[in-house]
Amino acid sequence: MNLAISLRRAIELWPDREACVDGMKRLTWRDLGQRVAALTHAFRNLGLTKGSVVACMAPNCVEYLELYYATSCLGLVLAPINFRLSEQEVREILVHSGAEMLVCHTDFAEHTTSMLEDLAGAGGETSLKLVTWLGPGHPAKTSFKSMHYEPFILSHWRRELIDCELYSEDLAQLYYTSGTTGLSKGVMLTHGNVASNALGAIAELGLTDRDIWAHIAPMFHLVDAWAVYAITWVGGKHVFVPYFKADEALKLLETENVTITALVPTMANALLQSGKVWEYSYSKLRAIMTAGSPVAPDTVRQIEEVFGCTYIQFYGMTETSPFLTVSLPFAEHLERPQAEVQAIRAKTGRTFIGVELKVVRPDGTCVEKNSMDVGEIIARGPNVFRGYWHNEEATREALRDGWIYTGDLAVVDGDGYVNIVDRKKDMIISGGENIYSTEVEHALHDHPQIIECAVFGVPDEKWGESIKACVVTKAGAVLKEEQVIEFVKERLAHYKAPREVEFMDELPKTGSGKILKKVLRDRCWQGRVKRVN
Amino acid sequence: MNLAISLRRAIELWPDREACVDGMKRLTWRDLGQRVAALTHAFRNLGLTKGSVVACMAPNCVEYLELYYATSCLGLVLAPINFRLSEQEVREILVHSGAEMLVCHTDFAEHTTSMLEDLAGAGGETSLKLVTWLGPGHPAKTSFKSMHYEPFILSHWRRELIDCELYSEDLAQLYYTSGTTGLSKGVMLTHGNVASNALGAIAELGLTDRDIWAHIAPMFHLVDAWAVYAITWVGGKHVFVPYFKADEALKLLETENVTITALVPTMANALLQSGKVWEYSYSKLRAIMTAGSPVAPDTVRQIEEVFGCTYIQFYGMTETSPFLTVSLPFAEHLERPQAEVQAIRAKTGRTFIGVELKVVRPDGTCVEKNSMDVGEIIARGPNVFRGYWHNEEATREALRDGWIYTGDLAVVDGDGYVNIVDRKKDMIISGGENIYSTEVEHALHDHPQIIECAVFGVPDEKWGESIKACVVTKAGAVLKEEQVIEFVKERLAHYKAPREVEFMDELPKTGSGKILKKVLRDRCWQGRVKRVN
Repeated sequence: MNLAISLRRAIELWPDREACVDGMKRLTWRDLGQRVAALTHAFRNLGLTKGSVVACMAPNCVEYLELYYATSCLGLVLAPINFRLSEQEVREILVHSGAEMLVCHTDFAEHTTSMLEDLAGAGGETSLKLVTWLGPGHPAKTSFKSMHYEPFILSHWRRELIDCELYSEDLAQLYYTSGTTGLSKGVMLTHGNVASNALGAIAELGLTDRDIWAHIAPMFHLVDAWAVYAITWVGGKHVFVPYFKADEALKLLETENVTITALVPTMANALLQSGKVWEYSYSKLRAIMTAGSPVAPDTVRQIEEVFGCTYIQFYGMTETSPFLTVSLPFAEHLERPQAEVQAIRAKTGRTFIGVELKVVRPDGTCVEKNSMDVGEIIARGPNVFRGYWHNEEATREALRDGWIYTGDLAVVDGDGYVNIVDRKKDMIISGGENIYSTEVEHALHDHPQIIECAVFGVPDEKWGESIKACVVTKAGAVLKEEQVIEFVKERLAHYKAPREVEFMDELPKTGSGKILKKVLRDRCWQGRVKRVN
Repeated sequence: MNLAISLRRAIELWPDREACVDGMKRLTWRDLGQRVAALTHAFRNLGLTKGSVVACMAPNCVEYLELYYATSCLGLVLAPINFRLSEQEVREILVHSGAEMLVCHTDFAEHTTSMLEDLAGAGGETSLKLVTWLGPGHPAKTSFKSMHYEPFILSHWRRELIDCELYSEDLAQLYYTSGTTGLSKGVMLTHGNVASNALGAIAELGLTDRDIWAHIAPMFHLVDAWAVYAITWVGGKHVFVPYFKADEALKLLETENVTITALVPTMANALLQSGKVWEYSYSKLRAIMTAGSPVAPDTVRQIEEVFGCTYIQFYGMTETSPFLTVSLPFAEHLERPQAEVQAIRAKTGRTFIGVELKVVRPDGTCVEKNSMDVGEIIARGPNVFRGYWHNEEATREALRDGWIYTGDLAVVDGDGYVNIVDRKKDMIISGGENIYSTEVEHALHDHPQIIECAVFGVPDEKWGESIKACVVTKAGAVLKEEQVIEFVKERLAHYKAPREVEFMDELPKTGSGKILKKVLRDRCWQGRVKRVN
């Protein structure tokens, strides 16, 4: 099984149907197929062969879809780069991945040209042969061969996709995880990984050729990128949102009759808080998914009320292509009161089809299904990655006996639904008690004035660690530290309340919108050798 | 990916939910899990190891499900045997497969005991160690160790399934094709074959934990057997119908709230013609599928009217686990008039998800999508079998460059839907013209008095072959040969009309209900060296 067959099927079955919408651009599957075909010939002409790496730094756009597929059809490896990374980080990825080509949007020309110049000057460090520019404008020339994307494609115009022998085990993508823990690692995903995840997603979500997907979350990240393949495979339609702006996204949901999309929770919140959210009709929208961090049951209720659609949470990692769980309720759950169903939808979810998942204690035994016993989520399946690119140590640590150790701590309820309580690394140990930062964050989220928060451990001479909360409040809110602490104490055991509250304008985040707790925490641990006292 | 994970998931997520209904017997997933666990321990205790073959000859029953899963969990290979085969054929399968154990229903005791005695006396010919009897009664002892199935299970009662290292490539089942061409070949299906087909079926058919599947078509055949895994994987429910009787099947559809089932067309016809078909309500039934041979658009209309559900045709082979196409309409088709939609549903169908399919001319090029150009269906994908058991020649003939050559001739319409016109071996060449037997059969089916028919070529001195039809009419019908011939001439080109019509009480059929045209044809070709003059 390889990824090329999903595109071939769409071209074969639905040549005249609209495949994608990108601003004013509308392409049928035949159109798209021809562009991808041309791209495969252009790649081949450039001398790229199976296993060659093509890096891409772009906002969501149809060309991103073309790149995913043209690389997949030829057995090349696409390395999507988070465009919020620093020049230095991008440079490191280009070098480490051995990318032979970079496709870059001119929006990031300023950000990259001097880095590219520097890289060109550094000699044998890079395998880069060509930089291809997407989008308007003429970026400054670099010492690398450089041209625009359109002439690159048009110079090799062909109708027929190159047919290449591809196997499940062949590498398809290399994702450098923005991560919350610092070092960027290259996650190797194979055709089999991505294809089995896509098939599972089609099965779990009931995707069909009536579905219209909005690429709103960034396509360089697996919150969204899996849909490139799943939506194509069923002959659905792709709609691209280059950069997230709440009002524009809302409008697009209406005008393009979007049926389903996946967001990071901060995006979902931004949509709900937009003044324009009631201006549009979302009659075709059947599901909004979120992933990346937990969502409060109340947010689920709001999403379902405002958009008149189902909410689905999913959980996974780049390393698992990404699905590990979905919060779809069982048939019998649907007969329960709405609030209970929404509480289920707000959970991390039950095991995704095709995956084996366990929540295990340090000794490897499974935790009880009592919503209390905490263990680490481990998983196995055809969607689990092959390893980190040139990083055997990290691979050995993550993959043991075929199981991936996620580093996520969770409980399991009586129905078998998993609920994450914390990242293993974010758990706070204070006076011998385990405190899960997310439990405290959930309590803070209930405060009507608090928009965002992050809770973590800081050094404490007496208790080892004590709890600190960084909080972002609504514009105009007047909230004092003692009020916040008191608010938590009313809801949780007193030892779980923060000792210290810092009010901030915004929290540092990764490219996919995850809060970078590490950055906040590191400020407080500077100069100490061990993180935990 | 292996097949055991689907059962583990159902036990984990839905332990207390009803898993299956077999007459008065009702088991939850926990119950079923324990019985399968006990069976794995009993197999292990018997000394069966990965790759050992267990043969089974039984009507549809919960024990069949247990056997499919217990063998899958241990990496044993289940060889389901068509119970309509002759003693000699069963014996050949037992010997050829190297089965170490036979599970046999006492309904077939009479049919098998003397064959087993003979086999026991034949010395080293067989690997058989144990015969286990299902069902009531005490069959005569054989020289093989022999016991009842229940004590076999109960003697190794355990809660935990044996955990065995299993891979995609491991063999799961060995199906001896009843075939329409004579020689029985052992089709080797791997865990990866069967699992990928099951996942695809879940995706295509939108199977969920609300589905209740009736095993009506025999579980020794892939018209039904794929649902063992697909239905378990989504946590649906299995309902077993041991032997097909139209009235009992109809009643069960009502009482067990069946949502979906797959039949061979003769069964579908029998249901429609039952006097009791209007006595029951089928309010939960959402789809009736058929496979094995083409269905007339009028039958589609009748099924949809009578049962108030959707009709889905699927096409495949044992060698492809089995799905190659399904006749699900596209989104835009559903806006057309009902009769057109039903005509689409009556087609062989469009490519199944995860599969690559082509209709090719002898030179390997694809036929035009014009509903005229005829070619052979070839396919490739993770569901395509590994080969025939100990039959490299047949394997080489069927599998070329990873593609399976189906021997089915088909046309492709403008939308990419395939429609089979004939088996390659059943095509009639008369006076240099290609005549597809199924086209003539379709015309005959339109006759209100004709229930069944088979059209094939017979020797003709002048034309090479001429066309003969064997026809079964409704009880009490008075139909003459000339009337039948005239009826076809009114509908098709005259050279396609039969020259000879034979009226029969019934047509010879395979275990899965396919008409054995070969048997009919062979009578007419006896004594000739070449089949085609």
